Amino acid sequence: MTAEAEAEAQVPAPRRGRPGYDQETVLRRAIDLFNQQGYDATSIGDIAKELGLTKSAIYHHVPSKEHLLSAALDEALGELTAAIDEATGPQASGSADARLRRVVARSVRILVDHLPAVTLLLRVRGNSAVELAALKRRRVLDEKLAALVAAAVDEGAIRSDIAPDLISRLLFGLVNSVAEWYRPDGPVDVDTLARSITDLAFAGLSSD
Amino acid sequence: MTAEAEAEAQVPAPRRGRPGYDQETVLRRAIDLFNQQGYDATSIGDIAKELGLTKSAIYHHVPSKEHLLSAALDEALGELTAAIDEATGPQASGSADARLRRVVARSVRILVDHLPAVTLLLRVRGNSAVELAALKRRRVLDEKLAALVAAAVDEGAIRSDIAPDLISRLLFGLVNSVAEWYRPDGPVDVDTLARSITDLAFAGLSSD
Repeated sequence: MTAEAEAEAQVPAPRRGRPGYDQETVLRRAIDLFNQQGYDATSIGDIAKELGLTKSAIYHHVPSKEHLLSAALDEALGELTAAIDEATGPQASGSADARLRRVVARSVRILVDHLPAVTLLLRVRGNSAVELAALKRRRVLDEKLAALVAAAVDEGAIRSDIAPDLISRLLFGLVNSVAEWYRPDGPVDVDTLARSITDLAFAGLSSD
Repeated sequence: MTAEAEAEAQVPAPRRGRPGYDQETVLRRAIDLFNQQGYDATSIGDIAKELGLTKSAIYHHVPSKEHLLSAALDEALGELTAAIDEATGPQASGSADARLRRVVARSVRILVDHLPAVTLLLRVRGNSAVELAALKRRRVLDEKLAALVAAAVDEGAIRSDIAPDLISRLLFGLVNSVAEWYRPDGPVDVDTLARSITDLAFAGLSSD
């Protein structure tokens, strides 16, 4: 052991909650379990077991299972909201077409960087107040994206022979479908993925 | 009441199983429940309650919950297998590009015509032997589609600047994403949907 490593080994890890676990770790494992076996089918007991904790120890970290779901959905929705507001808000600059391309590429990156949380968001069906609130926030984002697509059609940059609402559904359906198969350790890096999706989609959408 | 209607009213409905329900009805309601609240979170008791039956009465119709899942997945996989074999089997005629367009359009129609069963298939995570078998069958279909995409690239009909495997993922991801939002009673009819998807996708994929 080097002197540095020895010095480092003597510094105790920060204790947040019970030994070895902090809220963030509990959240990550919970999201993975929710995605593997479904939120409704996952109990706090399952999450505790996964972490090697007792059920009462896990309540030291989180007040409820719903609290974990809420944190995960907030993570995904917060990132997507920031990207969409940047492209559609009062400060947004550039043509609607350019802003749409930007938000598509950025959405792909968010999906890859926050894959478990976005996957969970995309599977929400509205079975609780937390899920219904998330669906409502998603709907607001979908409406902003549909309006941006409509503006790009009005500009003449995007084909007008398909209804803008349908274009928006298909375009962001394509982006979201990545959650079903993408693996960060797989053969496709995020740059290739974002470029391929924007290239394919906008070649297909072009009014030329 | 007309004479015809009166005559019709006198003919008793065929009795298959307990009054008012046949296996097909039980299966449809079960698939809807699985999609709403997740397969793992749905019990045979939930399905019985939904149909107004007792738990023991429902076992008159179906041997197990897994049997219902299996029937639903077979329905979706059977249709998709037929479409893909028609486009990739030894009898398939036409260029790879033409066959790929045909299988994309036909997949969209299958998705719409068998929306609940296909939705369930797309959500399968491999949490049981039945699910793992379905995932295995899906993988075989995905491989056949990827080979068809690669053949269309080799023909020169489809752009070669994106890896054929990635094109295949994105193309059928786009098709499958329809399950997330399409409603048969919504504003988009199946002809418009199939034409819009093939138009957009192949305009984007064209090597021209």
